[in-house]
Amino acid sequence: MAFLNENYLKLQAGYLFPEIGRRVKEFCDANPEAAKRLIRCGIGDVTEPLPAAAVVAMHKAVDELAHRETFRGYGHEQGYEFLRSKIAQHDYRDRGIEIADDEIFLSDGSKPDCGFILDILGDQNKIAITDPVYPVYVDTNVMAGHTGPATPTGGYEGIIYLPCTAENGFVPEPPSVHADLVYLCFPNNPTGAVATREQLVQWVKYAQEHNALLLYDTAYEGYISDPQIPHSIYEIPGALERAVEFRSFSKTGGFTGVRCGFTVMPKAVKAQTEDGRSLPLHPLWHRRWSTKSNGVSYPVQRGAEALYSEEGLRQVCALIDLYMGNARILSDAAEKAGMRVFGGKNAPYIWVQTPDGLTSWEMFDRMLHDLHVVITPGSGFGSCGEGYIRISAFNSRENAEEVARRLSSLRS
Amino acid sequence: MAFLNENYLKLQAGYLFPEIGRRVKEFCDANPEAAKRLIRCGIGDVTEPLPAAAVVAMHKAVDELAHRETFRGYGHEQGYEFLRSKIAQHDYRDRGIEIADDEIFLSDGSKPDCGFILDILGDQNKIAITDPVYPVYVDTNVMAGHTGPATPTGGYEGIIYLPCTAENGFVPEPPSVHADLVYLCFPNNPTGAVATREQLVQWVKYAQEHNALLLYDTAYEGYISDPQIPHSIYEIPGALERAVEFRSFSKTGGFTGVRCGFTVMPKAVKAQTEDGRSLPLHPLWHRRWSTKSNGVSYPVQRGAEALYSEEGLRQVCALIDLYMGNARILSDAAEKAGMRVFGGKNAPYIWVQTPDGLTSWEMFDRMLHDLHVVITPGSGFGSCGEGYIRISAFNSRENAEEVARRLSSLRS
Repeated sequence: MAFLNENYLKLQAGYLFPEIGRRVKEFCDANPEAAKRLIRCGIGDVTEPLPAAAVVAMHKAVDELAHRETFRGYGHEQGYEFLRSKIAQHDYRDRGIEIADDEIFLSDGSKPDCGFILDILGDQNKIAITDPVYPVYVDTNVMAGHTGPATPTGGYEGIIYLPCTAENGFVPEPPSVHADLVYLCFPNNPTGAVATREQLVQWVKYAQEHNALLLYDTAYEGYISDPQIPHSIYEIPGALERAVEFRSFSKTGGFTGVRCGFTVMPKAVKAQTEDGRSLPLHPLWHRRWSTKSNGVSYPVQRGAEALYSEEGLRQVCALIDLYMGNARILSDAAEKAGMRVFGGKNAPYIWVQTPDGLTSWEMFDRMLHDLHVVITPGSGFGSCGEGYIRISAFNSRENAEEVARRLSSLRS
Repeated sequence: MAFLNENYLKLQAGYLFPEIGRRVKEFCDANPEAAKRLIRCGIGDVTEPLPAAAVVAMHKAVDELAHRETFRGYGHEQGYEFLRSKIAQHDYRDRGIEIADDEIFLSDGSKPDCGFILDILGDQNKIAITDPVYPVYVDTNVMAGHTGPATPTGGYEGIIYLPCTAENGFVPEPPSVHADLVYLCFPNNPTGAVATREQLVQWVKYAQEHNALLLYDTAYEGYISDPQIPHSIYEIPGALERAVEFRSFSKTGGFTGVRCGFTVMPKAVKAQTEDGRSLPLHPLWHRRWSTKSNGVSYPVQRGAEALYSEEGLRQVCALIDLYMGNARILSDAAEKAGMRVFGGKNAPYIWVQTPDGLTSWEMFDRMLHDLHVVITPGSGFGSCGEGYIRISAFNSRENAEEVARRLSSLRS
């Protein structure tokens, strides 16, 4: 009989967001009146309409496909040149980072990319992951057989966990032990923390000393307002040889339903074979896309391209301003309610210590049942997330203000 | 240092279509005048505009995303219910096959799915693959480490090759040896062969006897005109426990640039663990999508849904009629030119024996240099493809007629 991949059986029940969905549905079914008042600040999903520039470009692209003269079939598996060059120029070369167009690989989102990257890496790599963490990094390594079984504390054997706590500002120092692959995400999901240049220099130094590869997820870089905070790992000297970077249009252009992101794979990034040869990863990544993809939908690529036009850039800024305004409103309200609040300054997530010694899921249930507000329990992101909740700033202004009002009732 | 996946180093140079692209570019650069006459019948890519129904639906969906009231962010990772139910009803239940909506998993194409399916299967499976074959089945198994090194004949050690020849009508019988996973593709790419009900019954019987899993790629089922030929493997009794089916909108709705396909994963399909437990694959496949995807672009899903409307179905039929008309014109021309011709009756591919004992690539070069027509060399699909070429019927009628005229000059 065909064998299944038994690593899947190690996965713990319920990916975080499905479990939230289940509890919310249960509550709404039992409380239809309260359900009408429900405000979702849980899953980090945008709420505002697509930027007009993207809408116009997508309409135009659909019309192109409607006529034989302008019809396009298969595109390059790695993405159209028109978009790869825009990204490389605007996001990197204009900022003094030498990234070539063909070092940009388009995908339907940075979540898939964070999983797909393991396709080209060896199974013998030692993995380091922050705690709390975006669950996809962990789960894709479990699926690939890079871990042992689950532990009672919610982790998996074989992974090096890097605790992110209030004490270290939720930015861990490089560990004393050896790791081959290190997942870093700044601005961080879920904590909203950002890494300073000095902290990232330490990480690049670690990668150099350990011949490690940094997997740098910067899906939220557009939310950085502090000019001192790096937007890309490649702002750090030496990183072009040591890091792969993941980005997304989900939270800049509101593309969570449209689907587009990209990976930066510099040609200088190398990994080794068992017999000690050091080879570039770029050809492997290129081949992976040629064989396992037919590229991103053409109208979607045109929509993403339009985000780099003058109007597009302005519209993206307006979206980010709106969400970051929400972040301030929500942070202030949580603080006024007596809670200890982190993040929310260079990131659309507010990381809040639960009051009264509640667990994360207890606080989740309290906010759901008492305030009719859905948040994300911090423990869903790892054991160090216990005692925290994540509030997402992705919402209409009206909803953010209403959540702020409801939070004030927590004081009493 | 981080380790790379050394299985990638076993892959033989150049995925077929990039190599064709390289030769065509070289020819065009050296012969700019002839390049203007070039007609591409190589890569199986559609040429006609999108069905109007899909165009209207995609415009409407983009407009929905342009307004807050109708905006949608993340969808279900496995696809929206509105499309999954249309597929399950129209393609399966209306034809007497009991497939539930949640057994349909949407993706951005059947090529990716044919690779992704290995995510949930064990590395110890014994793989059987037809020869010639769509290269993706082989290459994704090489990447996953399911093969030994390449062999001098263009295959890989450890794979069971099932020769498809003129003698067996390009439909192989089940082998006498044991396999756990068998890739079957009917209507076949590249040979254009179809499997009869009796032949598929033999394969399901083999799967039952060997506890094997059939991976059934039927991306071209829309091209079947003979009412006796099954469109789905599930038309065969017992297949619901033994087969996963892959389909695509690429060749029905002309979605090669739009990107949408799906996998049918019946809940009755099981695979086993090392310790002999037999477990359904459906929860693993569901989890794979939850963790590694955010679903297909919303406007794309609406476009695919529109292909099931009354107008959409009519427009898809018209597209298929056009391409199959081309297939007849090209088949006739190749036969009149004295060549032995297969396929092209229930499939958009014509499989032609090369004249004068030419190799496939020699015939490729001859057609490129003498006729300025790009075809696909059969040997690119496996060693049994040597001595054949694949001519694609995906073209405008005008181009198909012009290729037919040029083929007639081969006689002299």
